[in-house]
Amino acid sequence: MTSIPESHRDLLNEQVLTLGTISPGGGPQLSVVWFLAEGDTIKLSLNTRRQKVKNLQANPAASVIITGAANPYKYVEIRGDAEITPDDDYKFADEIGAKYGGADLRERDQPGDKRVVVTIRPAHVVTWG
Amino acid sequence: MTSIPESHRDLLNEQVLTLGTISPGGGPQLSVVWFLAEGDTIKLSLNTRRQKVKNLQANPAASVIITGAANPYKYVEIRGDAEITPDDDYKFADEIGAKYGGADLRERDQPGDKRVVVTIRPAHVVTWG
Repeated sequence: MTSIPESHRDLLNEQVLTLGTISPGGGPQLSVVWFLAEGDTIKLSLNTRRQKVKNLQANPAASVIITGAANPYKYVEIRGDAEITPDDDYKFADEIGAKYGGADLRERDQPGDKRVVVTIRPAHVVTWG
Repeated sequence: MTSIPESHRDLLNEQVLTLGTISPGGGPQLSVVWFLAEGDTIKLSLNTRRQKVKNLQANPAASVIITGAANPYKYVEIRGDAEITPDDDYKFADEIGAKYGGADLRERDQPGDKRVVVTIRPAHVVTWG
């Protein structure tokens, strides 16, 4: 599949997802992140100090998995190459902050950090449950 | 860190974890699986038909992340190479089945499938929350 079936679209309302990237050693690196879904496209707001962003800059291969908080046996995995674009004016960071109780992502960044938008369009979708 | 700190050992009581492996294309592949923890060592019961096992046979690099069901902002990620050993007599499969309501993992396998134990000893541990 290359799109999220109707049966699993409710998962796009979950609070967080797990992002998988490829670490410098070639193995998988996993972390939990905030996200916005635009249709089937997953968008993240990250800063360039984070290893996961450095990983994606070196190798765009990414996978995200969204698990039902109430039922972890229902999930959707979305794989695709990550596209990284600047968010210097925090436009997208503010959109995602609005989803999460009006969080100001500027407060999470240190001097010299750059905020970027990481966009993952589904190349391969797997569902379970 | 190469061990799970006391602050995050409660996560070993969670029902499931997310396993990351390296797919044939070189990108991350994620799925949700049952597990048993023995100290800091994570053990999974999988069958050899599953792509995640084929991935680990080709490249042992693995990462698992365990997220708090009640608080997804608390998690532990454990990275290490997976060791795959036969479980032809379903000894470990029955141990893990006992954790999950007495599930009989034989019922999940098809003729010709081989059940294996996947053991991940922590080489690198990351915590959040």
